[in-house]
Amino acid sequence: MNHMWSIVIGSLIRISPIKNFRANPCLPPIKVQHFIAQRLNQYILYSTPRFETSSILLTACFPLLFSTYSCAFPAAKAMAGSNFEVHSVFSNRSLPNGKFTATPEMLTLIAEENSKHGCRYLSLSMEANLEVGAKREIVLGRNMHTTCLEVTEPDADDESTGDKEAHIASILARYRNTLLERTKHHLGYPYNLDFDYGALSRLQHFSINNLGDPFIESNYGVHSRQFEVGVLDWFACLWEIEKDDYWGYITNCGTEGNLHGILVGREMLPDGILYASKASHYSVFKAARMYRMECVKVATLVTGEIDCTDFKTKLLTNKDKPAIINANIGTTVKGAVDDLDLVIQTLEECGFSHDRFYIHCDGALFGLMMPFVKRAPKVSFKKPIGSVSVSGHKFVGCPMPCGVQITRLQHINALSSNVEYLASRDATIMGSRNGHAPIFLWYTLNRKGYKGFQKEVQKCLRNAHYLKGRLREAGISAMLNELSSTVVFERPRDEEFVRRWQLACEGNMAHIVVMPNVTIEKLDYFLSELVQGRSIWYKDEKVRPPCLAEDVGIDNCSCALHK
Amino acid sequence: MNHMWSIVIGSLIRISPIKNFRANPCLPPIKVQHFIAQRLNQYILYSTPRFETSSILLTACFPLLFSTYSCAFPAAKAMAGSNFEVHSVFSNRSLPNGKFTATPEMLTLIAEENSKHGCRYLSLSMEANLEVGAKREIVLGRNMHTTCLEVTEPDADDESTGDKEAHIASILARYRNTLLERTKHHLGYPYNLDFDYGALSRLQHFSINNLGDPFIESNYGVHSRQFEVGVLDWFACLWEIEKDDYWGYITNCGTEGNLHGILVGREMLPDGILYASKASHYSVFKAARMYRMECVKVATLVTGEIDCTDFKTKLLTNKDKPAIINANIGTTVKGAVDDLDLVIQTLEECGFSHDRFYIHCDGALFGLMMPFVKRAPKVSFKKPIGSVSVSGHKFVGCPMPCGVQITRLQHINALSSNVEYLASRDATIMGSRNGHAPIFLWYTLNRKGYKGFQKEVQKCLRNAHYLKGRLREAGISAMLNELSSTVVFERPRDEEFVRRWQLACEGNMAHIVVMPNVTIEKLDYFLSELVQGRSIWYKDEKVRPPCLAEDVGIDNCSCALHK
Repeated sequence: MNHMWSIVIGSLIRISPIKNFRANPCLPPIKVQHFIAQRLNQYILYSTPRFETSSILLTACFPLLFSTYSCAFPAAKAMAGSNFEVHSVFSNRSLPNGKFTATPEMLTLIAEENSKHGCRYLSLSMEANLEVGAKREIVLGRNMHTTCLEVTEPDADDESTGDKEAHIASILARYRNTLLERTKHHLGYPYNLDFDYGALSRLQHFSINNLGDPFIESNYGVHSRQFEVGVLDWFACLWEIEKDDYWGYITNCGTEGNLHGILVGREMLPDGILYASKASHYSVFKAARMYRMECVKVATLVTGEIDCTDFKTKLLTNKDKPAIINANIGTTVKGAVDDLDLVIQTLEECGFSHDRFYIHCDGALFGLMMPFVKRAPKVSFKKPIGSVSVSGHKFVGCPMPCGVQITRLQHINALSSNVEYLASRDATIMGSRNGHAPIFLWYTLNRKGYKGFQKEVQKCLRNAHYLKGRLREAGISAMLNELSSTVVFERPRDEEFVRRWQLACEGNMAHIVVMPNVTIEKLDYFLSELVQGRSIWYKDEKVRPPCLAEDVGIDNCSCALHK
Repeated sequence: MNHMWSIVIGSLIRISPIKNFRANPCLPPIKVQHFIAQRLNQYILYSTPRFETSSILLTACFPLLFSTYSCAFPAAKAMAGSNFEVHSVFSNRSLPNGKFTATPEMLTLIAEENSKHGCRYLSLSMEANLEVGAKREIVLGRNMHTTCLEVTEPDADDESTGDKEAHIASILARYRNTLLERTKHHLGYPYNLDFDYGALSRLQHFSINNLGDPFIESNYGVHSRQFEVGVLDWFACLWEIEKDDYWGYITNCGTEGNLHGILVGREMLPDGILYASKASHYSVFKAARMYRMECVKVATLVTGEIDCTDFKTKLLTNKDKPAIINANIGTTVKGAVDDLDLVIQTLEECGFSHDRFYIHCDGALFGLMMPFVKRAPKVSFKKPIGSVSVSGHKFVGCPMPCGVQITRLQHINALSSNVEYLASRDATIMGSRNGHAPIFLWYTLNRKGYKGFQKEVQKCLRNAHYLKGRLREAGISAMLNELSSTVVFERPRDEEFVRRWQLACEGNMAHIVVMPNVTIEKLDYFLSELVQGRSIWYKDEKVRPPCLAEDVGIDNCSCALHK
């Protein structure tokens, strides 16, 4: 975290830190970062990766008005002092644009000139070299206030002319085209985009709200609890828990599932320590912070699975406190599945009795795929686990994010008896709850059934193997965990390519999550573009594909050293 | 909370406490409650209100198998000892059904007999008198596993015959009719059910997800951030905060807004005490529990507003710690608006400087109505408040719950800089976020505009005054807060009537929230049914309408004593 850059996005003062970004090592990034993060977060800084030149373009906009006026100059000076080359100055009419080396004096002059001309920003763009092989994780920033669709007040005569309606319709039509194109070129996120809920379109006219507990009827009649409980029963059966022993609800997303599972764990074991492998989803660490829980990060194996040797060491160091464990049933990046049996065995070996630990299984994606993989270790409530969550918009596919949360009813009873201030049991995180999501899930489960999902999972695994094989054949570093449909491979050098295919990246890795909508044809199309792209990016011998040995293991690495 | 009953709903072991329910006062409810809540929550207990006979039918099912076997007998004994009259025993083939007085011996006998015959339950129904005028709040329990729509596996030949499709279609058509009927008879919840999003129906085919921060673009291209930021800008303008000074996002519901606002407050003032009037939404107290915050409940005036005299006393008792305040811009039950200026003045008088308090405004409903009421105190970021939340599915109307959260960017910056473990800013509660909701809101804001909302708010206030006037004319206790469209009135005696009109009730109060879809015609229809109902419920002089003086003030009460 030493090399952190603050990137300000949107308008004047949007800020976000970028982890692991390292500019040219001869520059003093820490100094600048501190300056930016701590004293000066009132400017726009956005990055445009330019991989073809192995550099990155950083642009900073300093506001020159309001209270930040006085801050802009020292910031400009700091950046100039950092020896960046300023090669374009926009929003400035009195000075020519062009490449020149920035000096503190010159930047001050520009800022003053700009300010005189009523310009609110001093904008500087700097090209910085990227250290080849350095880990980078870039948040792409865009000025959202410029691209945003402003709400406009209707005119008095709008109703008669219909102009407003026509205007809205044209915006929506354009937007729909964008969605079509973006959906077509999507590979990076584990969302099944292949669904047809046309049969449900007439329900969109209702405000369906399953407020509160799915098992407690409310006076609000426009709900879909009957569908929700049907879906929950199906999942309870999948994860081997009796109808009478479970409690659950349809959540808004995987994060809500993790927030719920970990909260139940904390309420069962109030002084418990939260253990989670570092490959866990960020919502797990967010939960620790929200709930004021002690949190211990556990190392991972190269596959992305939790390292139970490290887990054991950490458990033994904290033997006096109960353990709350987040087990990953498919990590975000590598699709790795923690060995649940080994986790339980480790706990037992360290002397943790069943009433001194609570396991929450984050099965965002694979919680629904694993049951259909024959050789996969089972996620089952017959084992001493406390809760399982899965996302509904991922493998099932759904217009909006949603998830399924299942836990043991005994936990909820213990939890609820403490909630004195409520007339009814308040066991969900959210109050009002989307009543459409359960109907979408119910519809798909009914249409596909257990067998339909099994077929789809098998297809995904086959296609993922195909993709991995083709990548390795083409001399591209790639890995595929045995139980996973997430193919990890060398991050494409061109950020435009990454955006085009909407690939999620981390460090030198990119991944494709092979979902039911990802066909062989789509993969071939992608592969041909990737191979073509690489022939351009790496035509010059000076630039070599990155080494991924650390990320995917030596055997899967095709870098110059390991191939 | 002394008279709490545990009602177990759904199947075998669903439990929920019922507040303020008081059975015949000659019975020892506390004893039974303790017994049930603490030792025996593994049975079914459901209530069937029988208002025509001024009694309530309580049914308990004790499981006679598993580990609960031994508990059932003492429970049966306790209830028998409570002098209830058992008037039906089902699931029991060896003893006749019928009314008889239960003795511990008889119940033990029944249970033993049942168990011998392999029956899993001992079911007892008891008719208990309701104390007239006693506060009651009943969670109506239904066995959701019976009414649930089970997911069924498709048959091998389903695809060819189309049977499955036809079956699903018929379920959906029936469901749609229920929704139509339920929507028509809805008055109790503050949901505007009058919307037409037909123009957006083609977007339902896309998996739109605004994951993460609305101002930070993600690699996932199928999003609606441009709509989201447009909506946020509109609300920022409404609540008087500059585009460059605010941060916000579209939430899943009012609860998420409160969870977010209070979390921001806690992160700004880590040892702050949370103050909230007892009329606050339950999510506020849930937040305190989740976040491990000290929470102080403040008394309310009869209107439902926070009692600033009590607030002052409590502030002075805790002067050493910063204050985080939840201000209600429209309470759930009475639609009361806390006097923001008086709250701030009280804080200042108690010596709290602006950096030692944080105010979150829960404007779930009225956050969007207040700005359009001329004489209403303003919710504005020009005042020292930290955040405002409002629900999107309430006044605006939306198929699924959603909300708008606006806070100061400086708070989010402070918050984010602490989040070390993330590459990007993680400032929302949820990760994946519904991308359809912002489009619904954007569409309505564009079509109606500021002026359209103003007109609707005025109509709602007019209609609410009409309703209140008609109720008082009819000799029915009723109250309407000046800035509110929530009419509080005497709880209808017939629970079926309450359900028919989907009225939210608390104690002796029911309320109707006059939303844009609630027309004079609908109110007249409701009024005529209510007046007719009362002529039946109160035809006998023995039963009198309840006194609401404590709830709505003597002036608004039409009970025998106060009229």
